[in-house]
Amino acid sequence: MIKKPLIITFVVTFNYNMKKVLVLGSTGSIGNNTLNVIRNLPGQFKVTALTVNTRIDLLKPQIEEFNPEIVVVKEEKPAEELRKRLNGKIEVLSGIKGLCSVASGCEYDIFIGAMVGSAGLAPTIEAIKRGKRIALANKETLVVAGELVNELSKKYNAEILPVDSEHSAIFQCLAGENINQVEKIILTASGGPFLHNSKNDFLNATVEEALNHPNWKMGNKITIDSASMMNKGLEVIEAKWLFNIAQDKIDVVIHPQSIIHSMVQFWDGSIKAQLGLPDMKLPIQYALTYPERLQNNNLRTNLPLIGQLTFFEPDLDKFECLKIAYAALNTGGSAPCVLNAANEVAVDKFLKGTIKFSRIPYIINKSLEKIEHFNQPDLDIIFQCDKLTREFAAGLS
Amino acid sequence: MIKKPLIITFVVTFNYNMKKVLVLGSTGSIGNNTLNVIRNLPGQFKVTALTVNTRIDLLKPQIEEFNPEIVVVKEEKPAEELRKRLNGKIEVLSGIKGLCSVASGCEYDIFIGAMVGSAGLAPTIEAIKRGKRIALANKETLVVAGELVNELSKKYNAEILPVDSEHSAIFQCLAGENINQVEKIILTASGGPFLHNSKNDFLNATVEEALNHPNWKMGNKITIDSASMMNKGLEVIEAKWLFNIAQDKIDVVIHPQSIIHSMVQFWDGSIKAQLGLPDMKLPIQYALTYPERLQNNNLRTNLPLIGQLTFFEPDLDKFECLKIAYAALNTGGSAPCVLNAANEVAVDKFLKGTIKFSRIPYIINKSLEKIEHFNQPDLDIIFQCDKLTREFAAGLS
Repeated sequence: MIKKPLIITFVVTFNYNMKKVLVLGSTGSIGNNTLNVIRNLPGQFKVTALTVNTRIDLLKPQIEEFNPEIVVVKEEKPAEELRKRLNGKIEVLSGIKGLCSVASGCEYDIFIGAMVGSAGLAPTIEAIKRGKRIALANKETLVVAGELVNELSKKYNAEILPVDSEHSAIFQCLAGENINQVEKIILTASGGPFLHNSKNDFLNATVEEALNHPNWKMGNKITIDSASMMNKGLEVIEAKWLFNIAQDKIDVVIHPQSIIHSMVQFWDGSIKAQLGLPDMKLPIQYALTYPERLQNNNLRTNLPLIGQLTFFEPDLDKFECLKIAYAALNTGGSAPCVLNAANEVAVDKFLKGTIKFSRIPYIINKSLEKIEHFNQPDLDIIFQCDKLTREFAAGLS
Repeated sequence: MIKKPLIITFVVTFNYNMKKVLVLGSTGSIGNNTLNVIRNLPGQFKVTALTVNTRIDLLKPQIEEFNPEIVVVKEEKPAEELRKRLNGKIEVLSGIKGLCSVASGCEYDIFIGAMVGSAGLAPTIEAIKRGKRIALANKETLVVAGELVNELSKKYNAEILPVDSEHSAIFQCLAGENINQVEKIILTASGGPFLHNSKNDFLNATVEEALNHPNWKMGNKITIDSASMMNKGLEVIEAKWLFNIAQDKIDVVIHPQSIIHSMVQFWDGSIKAQLGLPDMKLPIQYALTYPERLQNNNLRTNLPLIGQLTFFEPDLDKFECLKIAYAALNTGGSAPCVLNAANEVAVDKFLKGTIKFSRIPYIINKSLEKIEHFNQPDLDIIFQCDKLTREFAAGLS
């Protein structure tokens, strides 16, 4: 009798090798896409915590699917309700305190900062202090406190990786290169829905028109910022701090197809560009897997099918917000914080229909004139500037 | 009385740090541009040897300017004349033997292989055997003997760096990346002067029309290869060996502006591209200075000024040579050697006006049918295939 060999196949998921991920802002556009990426790379990542503002209805299925240890919601009352419903199986915290306590106390490898606005700053700093990898989609963190955040990252050996498609493109182009040999960073901008409108039309734009972005499906705040090109202004400021580069080395080029996500020009004249479809899953995945790239089934870019890529200089007279952002970066200190807070208030007013589109740059300029300037603000001063600007801008229309 | 401090400024050129460079084919387009690059980076490179075929009138001013230790010319008679004129100050050799003896005996750090045709193979192998850095513009070396050349480079720890703008682009895009995570290499092609002609017009093209390349100023042989797209076929074969990648992972895309020099698509879907004006000085400089980039004053690329970049699939029915090259690469073994030799003969006939443009693919196909195939040719067999193909193709018209 011939003995059959006994073959045992082990299929083991090495949980202990899975990277633990904390997703702040999990129901927003970036948060959702982050969970898509994690879902598509099974066995690679474990979600430790999810945090949302108010969309608890969207949080519930995420909790079921990803089974985090902790969740944070904005207000204590819905937190209390959720706590009861989850029956102690998952810890539920609330507010900025909750966010900070997750960032400072939870076990994780990668912090995904995908919340909107300057509320992202405090928990990000907690993650920096623990020397974590921070995948930063919340551009306000660097816009309002770039210098400080950089100092802290250096001190605590934290790794800040960009999630924005533009900054991810630059980061990818810099792989294997020397940042000191960079001559220029070229941020591409779609030009938004008003690229081909005259300044007059554009200044009287409706909310619906401004939300009609040609390429990207994003949250409302950032879509309005794209229409005014303040988004690109904030990205210029973010790029300065992410890559530690002088502002006069950061250019903006209009590229309506959003296929080239950004470029780096080196001092030998060579330009490297990163291309892809307008899909946030790629830059999110890169921030999660860097320096490796993991295989996925995302749609691929077919350049012959796309046919042409075009480029223009931005019109700074028409896109006043971009000009104001460059000026605030030149002023430095607390100016970018004031710029950002005033813009948040103005965009909110526009979305609520209480101001015209043309009043966005007006409110920002007025705030920059009014709010006291600090050359080297610490965190307390930054929070104070942010608060004072919001109060002041709230009164403008 | 106050004593003035004595300030002495030392400006020293550290000759012992200068890289020694051997330029094979110094009066051709790449050779000339190499000397331009060296001239524009004073103190970085010392030219040890210059070699030319017949253009001794162009060699003379190069000798004066760069003061090499040795020069090589093709024929012994002009070598003897030059030897007398130079009066023993510079050694003068001749022929393939001279080239090989420079490559194997001369003192140098970087070997610039800028000669045209398969004559480049033997001296390149000498340089490989010494474990040198080889800046390879002579694509025939890899086309006819890619597998062998790769084995030898590995054995002798030689470094083969591309000079072709396309392969340099790919090489630049691969910096800091893992070649195993590459999904596709995308070689861009201008499409040459006949991109917009119908197949019929194109097959009856005159020499003058075929030499009228829209973007690049190059030598005659390579300009005709561009018109037939055989140049891109040779580049596909070259890419396979340079980057050790399967041929089905090498795509060709028509990009008439020649601004994106080539691209790499990674398995996460991200594409990296290298861009620049159509100017060989940049890829040559990169091969000389890699992994560093040195600052230069070359013209910069202004994308808003260029306005648009377009992309098409190549028409393999019209550009038959490209299809034949893919097929030869698939066959492997000695087929690319036969392809290359038959093409050299056919292009030469076309340039001399003895055949029509449409006979180029015909002569190549006939040669591939006729010449005996070898699966794993050694160098002797390769030289034999090259010789037999040339003899056979010479009889076709």
